[in-house]
Amino acid sequence: MPTVTMIGGGQLARMTHQSAIALGQCLRVLASGPTDPAAQVSGDVVFGSHEVLDDLREAAEGAVALTFDHEGVPLGLLEALEAEGVAVRPPSKALRFAQDKLDMRNRLAELGLPVPDYADLSGDVAAARDQLIAFGDRNDWQVVIKAVRGGYDGRGVWLVDGRDKALAVFDEQAGGDTVLMAEQKVTMRRELSAMVARSPYGQGAAWPVVETVQRNGQCAVVLAPAPDLDREIAQQAQQMALRLADELGVIGAMAMELFETADGRLVVNELAMRPHNSGHWTMDGAVTSQFEQHLRAVLDYPLGDTSPRAEVVVMANVLGAEQTPEMSVDERLHHLFARMPDAKVHMYGKGERRDRKVGHVNVVGAPGDDVDRVRERAERAAHWMSHAVWTDGWDPHA
Amino acid sequence: MPTVTMIGGGQLARMTHQSAIALGQCLRVLASGPTDPAAQVSGDVVFGSHEVLDDLREAAEGAVALTFDHEGVPLGLLEALEAEGVAVRPPSKALRFAQDKLDMRNRLAELGLPVPDYADLSGDVAAARDQLIAFGDRNDWQVVIKAVRGGYDGRGVWLVDGRDKALAVFDEQAGGDTVLMAEQKVTMRRELSAMVARSPYGQGAAWPVVETVQRNGQCAVVLAPAPDLDREIAQQAQQMALRLADELGVIGAMAMELFETADGRLVVNELAMRPHNSGHWTMDGAVTSQFEQHLRAVLDYPLGDTSPRAEVVVMANVLGAEQTPEMSVDERLHHLFARMPDAKVHMYGKGERRDRKVGHVNVVGAPGDDVDRVRERAERAAHWMSHAVWTDGWDPHA
Repeated sequence: MPTVTMIGGGQLARMTHQSAIALGQCLRVLASGPTDPAAQVSGDVVFGSHEVLDDLREAAEGAVALTFDHEGVPLGLLEALEAEGVAVRPPSKALRFAQDKLDMRNRLAELGLPVPDYADLSGDVAAARDQLIAFGDRNDWQVVIKAVRGGYDGRGVWLVDGRDKALAVFDEQAGGDTVLMAEQKVTMRRELSAMVARSPYGQGAAWPVVETVQRNGQCAVVLAPAPDLDREIAQQAQQMALRLADELGVIGAMAMELFETADGRLVVNELAMRPHNSGHWTMDGAVTSQFEQHLRAVLDYPLGDTSPRAEVVVMANVLGAEQTPEMSVDERLHHLFARMPDAKVHMYGKGERRDRKVGHVNVVGAPGDDVDRVRERAERAAHWMSHAVWTDGWDPHA
Repeated sequence: MPTVTMIGGGQLARMTHQSAIALGQCLRVLASGPTDPAAQVSGDVVFGSHEVLDDLREAAEGAVALTFDHEGVPLGLLEALEAEGVAVRPPSKALRFAQDKLDMRNRLAELGLPVPDYADLSGDVAAARDQLIAFGDRNDWQVVIKAVRGGYDGRGVWLVDGRDKALAVFDEQAGGDTVLMAEQKVTMRRELSAMVARSPYGQGAAWPVVETVQRNGQCAVVLAPAPDLDREIAQQAQQMALRLADELGVIGAMAMELFETADGRLVVNELAMRPHNSGHWTMDGAVTSQFEQHLRAVLDYPLGDTSPRAEVVVMANVLGAEQTPEMSVDERLHHLFARMPDAKVHMYGKGERRDRKVGHVNVVGAPGDDVDRVRERAERAAHWMSHAVWTDGWDPHA
C-alpha cells in the first residue's frame, strides 16, 4: 500500500494516522520531536524541521504524496520539492492562498466571491498609514487588522475599537516582520464553515455546512449542520467552496470559513487547505471523516460519502483551562465516561496550557434530539475535561 | 495518560491502537517482527516472542495493563507475570477457559450453561478410543473432534462423517502433541455471537447479538443484529455471556459463540476473551467499538454505550483468494471506492494468502434498508477486495 507523508506532527496528523490505519497504510509524519501528538502514535516518524529542505526531502522519500498538518512550510521549499517530482498536495500554487491572506483576498475578489472590504498595508509605512486612514474612514472604523501570514487561533488578528486603537496597532506593528492588511469588520449573525475535499482527478465532495462558535478568537464549538440555515444559503456556501477548490487546484480537504451577515448574506473569512477543526465532528458524525477524505483526496482515490450519521452532531473543543486542574486527565476521563457513556472523546496527547486545544468531544444526537440539548451535553463534557468542573453543578459526593 | 500493552501484533492489536489514539494513548505492542499488522502502525513496539518471559516482562514494563491479541501465551508465563504484579487482563484464571476447550466445557457445564454433549479424549489412548466409541454411539456419530488447545479459524477442528472417519482422525492424531476431545455435532439453524465486555469494577455491557456466517470453518460474514432473532433468545444470549464473564472474572471484551439449534435453543460453542471478528461491525456500526471498549475495560474505565448506529450493519471479511489477483490491493480499493462511496474498509497490512483474513468491510444500512440488501453490498465489496471480481458481473469497460 502507498505511503503518504504529512508535514507536521500535531493533532491533525495524529487523527489522519488513525484513518490511514484503516486504509492499510501507516502515515509518515515529519515531526519536531517525539512528544508531538502524531509522533507518539505513528510507526513511521521522521524528525526534523518543516523549514529545512533536506528534512522535507527525507520525509518525502518513497512517499506517493506529501501533505500538511499546518500551513507553515515556506513556499519556496515546496516549489523546490515539486521541481524534484514530489507530489505536493495541495500544490504550492494552491497552498499560497491559504498561507497569504492578501493573495487570498485578491484571488477571491477576482473570482467574484464575496469578501469583506480590505486594504493592503504591506507597502511603504507612511503610504500604508494613509491607506489605513482612508480605509477606516470609509468603513466607519469598523476595522480588523490582520497579519497577512502566519496567524491562527486568534493570533495575528487585532480587533481594534475605533481609529485611535487601529492606528496604535498599526504604529506598533508596521515596519517590523509582520506584513499587515486591514479588513472591514462584518456585522454578522454567526460564523459558518463549508468543508469540502477535492481530488487530483477533479472530484469534489462537500459535507453539510456547519456553524462554528468562537471564543477568544478560536473555535470552541461546532454545530453540524448549522441550525436553521436557509437551504439555498447552505448550497451557495458549498458551491462557493467547491468552485474555489477547483479554481485554485486544491487537493485534499479544504475549509472555507464564512460570515453569515446580519442581513443573511455570505462573506468569505478564511481558508484552510487541510483537515480543519470545523470538520472534527465528521469523525463520529459522518460516513466519511475529514481525515479519511483528506487521504483519499491526496491519493487520488474516489472520495467517500459525506452524509451525516445523525440529524445533529456537536463538537466541543477541550481547551486548556486558566488553571490546570489537580485531577489528572486520566481521572477526568473516568468521570466523563461514567456520566456520558455515549460521548466520543479524542485526546491529542498534548500537555495542558491555557486555551490550548488538547482534545475534543463529539456528541452524536439521537433521533429527535434538538441541537440545544446535544450542544449542552457536548459543552458540558468538554468543559469537564478542561476544568474538572461540571457546568450543571453536579457533584457525585453531594 | 496510561500505557496498555497488547501481546501480539495482529489486526486486533492494529485496530485497538486506532482506538487507543482517541483515548490519548499509544498502544504498546509485543510483535514478532516489523511487518506484523500492528507493528507497522504503532509508535511503541517491543519485538519478541509471547513465549519468552523476558520479552513479556519488557513489554509489560511501566504499562498499567497487559492484554492480548490472541490466546497463545502460555498460562505459566502469565501466572509468573501476575506474581510479579503485572495487571494481566483478562487474568490467567479467566483466560485458561479461552485457551482450553475442555476446561471451558467443564466450567460451562458446572455453571449450568447449555453445552453440546462432549467427551474428554485426553487420557490414555486405548481408554480414550473406547470413550470415543461410546460417545459416538450415543450421538449417532454426529460428532466433531477438536484439539483442546490452539485451534482457530477452522484449524484444530475435524468435522467427521460417521464412525470410520472419526476413528481414523482419532488414530492419526491421538498420542501426539494434540490433546483431543469429542463434541456432539449440533443440528443448528445458524451461529450467533454474543459480545460483551466486563471491567475489573464488575461493570458489564453487551452489544446486540449477531449472526455469524461461516465458510470453510471460519467467519465470513456478520449480520448485526441477528435477523429475526426472538427477543427473549437474544436477551438470554446476552445474559449468559454477561454471567459467564462475571463468573470467570473476565476483564476486557469477550465473545460467546453460540449455536441456535433447529428447535430454537441456544448452545455455547466457543469463547474468546479479546476483541473478536464477530465484533468488527461495531467499528462503524455501534456508538462504542469493541476495540475502544476492550481498552476501557482493561483500564477499568466506565464502559461505553453499545447501541447500534443503524437498524442493520453487515461486516464481510476480506479473505485471501485461491489465486491472488494481478490487480494490486491499492487499485482494488480505488475501484471499490468508486462504486461504493459508503463502504467502510479496514485493511490489515497483511500479505494475501488463500483464506487469510486480510481486511474487512462494514456496510451500515440506511434507514429502512433490509438486511439482504446490506449483506449483498457488504459481500460484493469484500469479494471484490479479495478477487478483483464483482459478484454481480459489473464490468466498467463493457
